[in-house]
Amino acid sequence: MCFTTVSMNYDNAACQSVLHRIRTQRPFVYGLTNYVAATLSANVLLAAGAAPAIGAAPGWATGFGGHAGAMWINAAGLINCTAQDMHDAVTAAQGNGVPWVLDPVAMGAGVSQYDAIIRDLASGGPAAIRGNASEVMALAGGSATAKGVETTASITQALPLARELASSRGVIVAISGPEDHILAPDGRHVTVPGGDPMLTMVTGMGCALGGLVAACLAVTPTGPDRLVAVAAAHALYARAAEIAARSAQGTASFATGFVDALSRLQQTAGPGASG
Amino acid sequence: MCFTTVSMNYDNAACQSVLHRIRTQRPFVYGLTNYVAATLSANVLLAAGAAPAIGAAPGWATGFGGHAGAMWINAAGLINCTAQDMHDAVTAAQGNGVPWVLDPVAMGAGVSQYDAIIRDLASGGPAAIRGNASEVMALAGGSATAKGVETTASITQALPLARELASSRGVIVAISGPEDHILAPDGRHVTVPGGDPMLTMVTGMGCALGGLVAACLAVTPTGPDRLVAVAAAHALYARAAEIAARSAQGTASFATGFVDALSRLQQTAGPGASG
Amino acid sequence: MCFTTVSMNYDNAACQSVLHRIRTQRPFVYGLTNYVAATLSANVLLAAGAAPAIGAAPGWATGFGGHAGAMWINAAGLINCTAQDMHDAVTAAQGNGVPWVLDPVAMGAGVSQYDAIIRDLASGGPAAIRGNASEVMALAGGSATAKGVETTASITQALPLARELASSRGVIVAISGPEDHILAPDGRHVTVPGGDPMLTMVTGMGCALGGLVAACLAVTPTGPDRLVAVAAAHALYARAAEIAARSAQGTASFATGFVDALSRLQQTAGPGASG
Repeated sequence: MCFTTVSMNYDNAACQSVLHRIRTQRPFVYGLTNYVAATLSANVLLAAGAAPAIGAAPGWATGFGGHAGAMWINAAGLINCTAQDMHDAVTAAQGNGVPWVLDPVAMGAGVSQYDAIIRDLASGGPAAIRGNASEVMALAGGSATAKGVETTASITQALPLARELASSRGVIVAISGPEDHILAPDGRHVTVPGGDPMLTMVTGMGCALGGLVAACLAVTPTGPDRLVAVAAAHALYARAAEIAARSAQGTASFATGFVDALSRLQQTAGPGASG
Repeated sequence: MCFTTVSMNYDNAACQSVLHRIRTQRPFVYGLTNYVAATLSANVLLAAGAAPAIGAAPGWATGFGGHAGAMWINAAGLINCTAQDMHDAVTAAQGNGVPWVLDPVAMGAGVSQYDAIIRDLASGGPAAIRGNASEVMALAGGSATAKGVETTASITQALPLARELASSRGVIVAISGPEDHILAPDGRHVTVPGGDPMLTMVTGMGCALGGLVAACLAVTPTGPDRLVAVAAAHALYARAAEIAARSAQGTASFATGFVDALSRLQQTAGPGASG
Repeated sequence: MCFTTVSMNYDNAACQSVLHRIRTQRPFVYGLTNYVAATLSANVLLAAGAAPAIGAAPGWATGFGGHAGAMWINAAGLINCTAQDMHDAVTAAQGNGVPWVLDPVAMGAGVSQYDAIIRDLASGGPAAIRGNASEVMALAGGSATAKGVETTASITQALPLARELASSRGVIVAISGPEDHILAPDGRHVTVPGGDPMLTMVTGMGCALGGLVAACLAVTPTGPDRLVAVAAAHALYARAAEIAARSAQGTASFATGFVDALSRLQQTAGPGASG
């Protein structure tokens, strides 16, 4: 297996094509996520052009999970729905070929009962897994110990286990960090540079990225392009963060500027024009 | 029955009188809504001058539902409370003559189990029902199919069924759209022009409007003025949106500007002064 | 017992030392709070430099409650977790010497079933209790009746009962108001002036303060300095509010400016430099 590493940012035509498809197709994207991140996640998806719905009202997990364009499951959503809700949503998505994203928030933080639920969900055939270094290492069977929802491991530490996770499970694995790394089961490896450290100072930014990854998958039917779709979500994030950082007065105006920038990004515009 | 249609906006004295009463009476408004929209809903109500409380902590549905100045039930609140909680709140409100608003979020999106709960709630004597065209059509017995929480029907399609819903149930029916339509059981019909398309790009904006309708009802004891009260909520929304759109840099700063504008609206000020 | 009253604001070196310790130690702070306030609470903690986690996913109450640097329990969190979750978290915190803060939101608003749960939690040895005047009076056994989550009592009315609560339970009691009052069991009494009335027009601002009090306690191991730590949280709040009020265009931009200011506060900067 050869590990070809390429870099992608928003100026890449493939990335802008993904955004264009979201805006023209307006995919219905369903998520089970936590109430801390839910509002930002919905606003990120709306800004990108998708049509999100969130939460496990009676019948939604099966009904929406089975009929959405794509779905994301954020493990910390267990603060407001049951493991059964998540299981039902995954079963419905699997049964209907709906691609779904698993975000193993806070895995490896020392709560084995919680970690076991995520491990079980991971066996349900996600199209992509995204998390920080600690979370991905923990899901891959490593011994990383996170600090609540924050990573204590570096991407360098996580990469070998992440590669193994991708190839053994046949899933795209994305690790967020100062530079993001997206790994395909066939050994391809995309890095996404840029972004801004303030992304880690706003709650739910990582969680909302899981939703955006789902939106990108919703407009990318299948096959090798899905690596590009997952990378595109990260590249959109990085560019919006860079634009927001230019005029931020602190972490809250950064968040406002981030969603603003995402809502204004044009699929044909370079960094100057989009700012 | 004659269908008299009048137009109302924020410059209408009756609308400003409703806002003035909210600010001077500071009504306690209780809501069962979803966690995606809850924070914005509370902030919209605070900006308007009301005192909101949200959620079904033990005893709240009965205690607050029975003693609030008004209440709103957002069906998507079923992602974080039970149908029984909603039923208890409605029973308490009915028993104490507390006016309440039903927002049938995502009704008609293809989840029959969920739709049935809303249909049951609707039989509990709401003072007003507000939703988008698909939701109102679905509640009225039509066959609209929404895309998650977004409408796929036009207001023109929804109006005949909405009129029938209003007259057969004796409830005010409000449909949000490019122009809002508010229908009374006696055939009166108010349209509210204006607003801004960005209202549909911020999650929870429709949900929060349900809360504001409740606040307007809380300060409007009974009778024909309630049509004006419901329309006033829509007119306040439209004006705040227009002010926000002038300086928005994207969807998130639009949301900030919207709440800002609502918090600054003066009951005697015209559009220039309030901006 | 002598009631020595001193005033503290952000220019106080002890306050800046607390902020400095949060930024350098980055304590893990765990909270059970309500979904209306959760996002703002997490963002306030991140802006101050702490590492928050929120909610009762399976195993978290015991796991995180027992291993966090500090914890806060917001009673309105009962809208999204069970009394048992809160009890488990308190037991774990107590067993591991983790300091925790109780925020008796909406106590005394007329829902006896809910008030009883808070009274039970209060017996679990919180390091601090913070609330508005009505809530503190209700918890201290007074007859205050709140209006939902808003106070109807004045601080002057609440002080005698609050002092008694502090000394009889051996707990620091903080009452938020136009001027905040923080009372130690030994009779010491700190007032924190300043802030801005807009703090009461943004939902969750009081709730998020409970989280910040926990963060300040996390970096203040024990003993008499804890009074200073609790007061410091209030002083940080007051300064950030004053900075935000200078450029706010309404209640939403005030909230953005508040978190921005908190994220920019330097432990050595005076009010001019920090603005």
